[in-house]
Amino acid sequence: MKNAVGRDLPDFLEGYGEIKPFVGAFATIPTIRKTSPKVKFTLPTASKRLDNLEAVFKKIPITDGMMLSFHHHHRDGERLLGQVFAIAEKLGIKNLGLSVTGGPFPFHEFLIEYMQKGIITRMVTSGIYGSVAKAVSQGVLPQPVVLHTHGGRPRKVQAGELKVDVVFIAAPSADDNGNITGAIGPSACGSLGYHFADAEYAETVVAVTDNIVPFPLTRISIPQTQVDYVVKVDQCGDPNGIVSGTTKKTTDPAKLAMAETCANVIKGSGLLKDGFSFQTGAGGPSLAAAHFVSEMMQKDQIQGSFCAGGIHAYLVEMLEMGLFRTAFDVQSFDLQTVASMAKNPNHIEISADYYANPFNNGCIVHKLDTVILGATEVDTDFNVNVVSGSNGVIMGGSGGHSDTAAGAKMTIIVTNLTRGGKYPIVMDEVTTVTTPGESIDVVVTEVGVAVNPKNDELKRRLADAGLPVKDIHELKKIAEDTVGVPGKPKQDGRIVGVVEYRDGTVIDLVRQV
Amino acid sequence: MKNAVGRDLPDFLEGYGEIKPFVGAFATIPTIRKTSPKVKFTLPTASKRLDNLEAVFKKIPITDGMMLSFHHHHRDGERLLGQVFAIAEKLGIKNLGLSVTGGPFPFHEFLIEYMQKGIITRMVTSGIYGSVAKAVSQGVLPQPVVLHTHGGRPRKVQAGELKVDVVFIAAPSADDNGNITGAIGPSACGSLGYHFADAEYAETVVAVTDNIVPFPLTRISIPQTQVDYVVKVDQCGDPNGIVSGTTKKTTDPAKLAMAETCANVIKGSGLLKDGFSFQTGAGGPSLAAAHFVSEMMQKDQIQGSFCAGGIHAYLVEMLEMGLFRTAFDVQSFDLQTVASMAKNPNHIEISADYYANPFNNGCIVHKLDTVILGATEVDTDFNVNVVSGSNGVIMGGSGGHSDTAAGAKMTIIVTNLTRGGKYPIVMDEVTTVTTPGESIDVVVTEVGVAVNPKNDELKRRLADAGLPVKDIHELKKIAEDTVGVPGKPKQDGRIVGVVEYRDGTVIDLVRQV
Repeated sequence: MKNAVGRDLPDFLEGYGEIKPFVGAFATIPTIRKTSPKVKFTLPTASKRLDNLEAVFKKIPITDGMMLSFHHHHRDGERLLGQVFAIAEKLGIKNLGLSVTGGPFPFHEFLIEYMQKGIITRMVTSGIYGSVAKAVSQGVLPQPVVLHTHGGRPRKVQAGELKVDVVFIAAPSADDNGNITGAIGPSACGSLGYHFADAEYAETVVAVTDNIVPFPLTRISIPQTQVDYVVKVDQCGDPNGIVSGTTKKTTDPAKLAMAETCANVIKGSGLLKDGFSFQTGAGGPSLAAAHFVSEMMQKDQIQGSFCAGGIHAYLVEMLEMGLFRTAFDVQSFDLQTVASMAKNPNHIEISADYYANPFNNGCIVHKLDTVILGATEVDTDFNVNVVSGSNGVIMGGSGGHSDTAAGAKMTIIVTNLTRGGKYPIVMDEVTTVTTPGESIDVVVTEVGVAVNPKNDELKRRLADAGLPVKDIHELKKIAEDTVGVPGKPKQDGRIVGVVEYRDGTVIDLVRQV
Repeated sequence: MKNAVGRDLPDFLEGYGEIKPFVGAFATIPTIRKTSPKVKFTLPTASKRLDNLEAVFKKIPITDGMMLSFHHHHRDGERLLGQVFAIAEKLGIKNLGLSVTGGPFPFHEFLIEYMQKGIITRMVTSGIYGSVAKAVSQGVLPQPVVLHTHGGRPRKVQAGELKVDVVFIAAPSADDNGNITGAIGPSACGSLGYHFADAEYAETVVAVTDNIVPFPLTRISIPQTQVDYVVKVDQCGDPNGIVSGTTKKTTDPAKLAMAETCANVIKGSGLLKDGFSFQTGAGGPSLAAAHFVSEMMQKDQIQGSFCAGGIHAYLVEMLEMGLFRTAFDVQSFDLQTVASMAKNPNHIEISADYYANPFNNGCIVHKLDTVILGATEVDTDFNVNVVSGSNGVIMGGSGGHSDTAAGAKMTIIVTNLTRGGKYPIVMDEVTTVTTPGESIDVVVTEVGVAVNPKNDELKRRLADAGLPVKDIHELKKIAEDTVGVPGKPKQDGRIVGVVEYRDGTVIDLVRQV
């Protein structure tokens, strides 16, 4: 069958199950009830403390085939995966599932060996970075990786599609009774929002901390009522790994120029007025765009309602200047943001459910005026790829890309027209569809701005505002004239990845290279 | 069958179902999974605002037989029950269930007419006060009232024992998208903790507010993700009704003396040291006891870890003086407390689940060192009645009584030996068992202090501390010598109330008078 973005899909995929095709951004309406987590019980006199991670394995016990879950709030500084799978290997446990809210990251190259040895045989995540991504593309896992969105994850957990046996929550601070937070402690990472659903639904919840505080922890992110065990380790995460490649501000003048264009698009759209709500993705130009938006808001004395998402230092500064009344933080992208969440009552930690779950009574991304996002490829139907490179190798994932794109009134993609002077980014057909073109309103490049034809009114406004509006096909032609039309990767290998849209339908597949 | 406190129970009760007998405070271990709330969905462009409560009835629609839920955070100032049932009557809807987290209160006398007319035919609550209690005892409802504890309520909701069709949440502030809080607004009532479980599990969630704030509300108690509709009314609750009879400080010198004895018992027990945790019930002497405990803590420079429960002005003052690091607030008992929760980050709103649910990974009452509670009757097995008067007429309910008694290391009952110079309070057998004697450690009266024989060590400590320790039978004798032994009410009427222990087993029944 073909889905709504024209991708051919089988009805059923071994290691995944029945495939529901993507039929449109808001076309799949849930008719189900949530799954049923276990009712737990603990005596008042019981202690939750276990001596070490190996004791956790033996206590639960962790056995072959279980699904283990980790969060990625420390990003490249994530430090539990290594500790946990080393014990799995030591104890001879095999065929484990790895569920991460994001990643693995470049640091986690060692996971490839666990995959090769059959200790990890399946993976569920919002995006894979570094060597593990390449290994997955080359077929290291016998089962296809499931790539979900940030909003899709709590939806999957609530629906029972993703059944977590044991969640290991890297907890920068915890008390003996299992109240935990990421806001404080030597490994503070800010929000723990991506792990809230797992804490609520997993069969067993293990808080792993390097900072035990006196009971009760007062700043509670995940409550003792959900936590089965508390373990102290030397380091549960390295905060220096939080700012990774994708969250550093660009210094490239061309990218800064594009960032300024993004800000002008926002102004030209008419959305930049009191009550304005805003999110930027983790790419360099997106972050820089926040800076230009900030200057406009200051100049015109505009107070926004909220910024959301991965919160970063620019947004924190805007919050502190009163340019936004609220920051909704599902992930803190740098240490300044971590510090802000700990002290500013208007900087609010939110769950991934509140952030982006399409199947609840209204997530916050559905209230966004605008979001600025990146792309590795954009096609003339405005479909965006942030999963794979043009060679078909996995190099990321949706994260909140398709969630925010679907929710925002105006979604802006900012990207260079070509990459490395070699590959076009605007093209006829993206290698892997991550976000459907129907969710994209504007593509900003260094040579011009293309507006989705579905949005005539916006096109007129941007042209009136003096922006260099071009047809998307024109941008494609310029890209191809510059770097030529590279050959497409063969798409005939085994299916190694399933790209789920936020509602759980399948928007594309990734094949072995 | 007989339960563990010697009460005869049928196996099955019409209008209630199968009866599980109480077998001991921690003897019933759950082996179930939580029930499955509906997965919800709303389009980003959808509005949740409805014009008035009648529009809510028609939109859902509300039909015969549904269970409607309300919270009691405004206590005698609760103002939605009247508005909602007036519409039910107008629309000719019958046979509704009334689920309140507490109450009705004296103000709600008008509910009797709805009961007489068959508009309300069943009720689930943590305690009934005033005329409605008397009418229930006289058999106004065809089905027995279910009296649960504060911790029992989220447990019932999670287990699917209490299925709420529509929850009307009196929301002192809300935004258009359904983020709500009790912390601010003209009808501010502080914590909304008792209604969190209903908001999570009810089929339809309606936020009823008299104060719409700009989106987004920043101080969120119940999130937009759970709320289906938002309605503005003239008044959603009267904060002047929050301080009712049971939450006023005593001025009676005899009661003040008992309060001081309570404080001396706490000191004598050895529990009053750094890390001390504390709760007082809503009775006058209990509140006064907080004052004496405060003085001791100041004098000995003790810093407690937390106070919990219904938080009141004395506890707020102790928090502000640094005598406790944290106040866990499931219900704010006065306006000073409401104001504190809105501004003090160490004054934390908690759900009833976090507060007292016996079936999770550890509620906060399980971490209490001591709780001071009242009683309408205590028997020589230390069983306590706070449900009915000695005439068998309902006049209250457990609330958090049996939750805290079960959880605290030392549970103190403070009570006069007799009431009104007419009725003994300490007796052979209480009229209605609310809290089992196994959970009670000390009974403080104006003539002496009785210690549960199970706790020899404590008895010795209190005697060593110079407290007037007496046998409970001795207290009973003094009471009977003073006022005689009144006749017991006949216990042969229809069963009009089921007193559930916090774990859902039945600890006693209430019969029609």
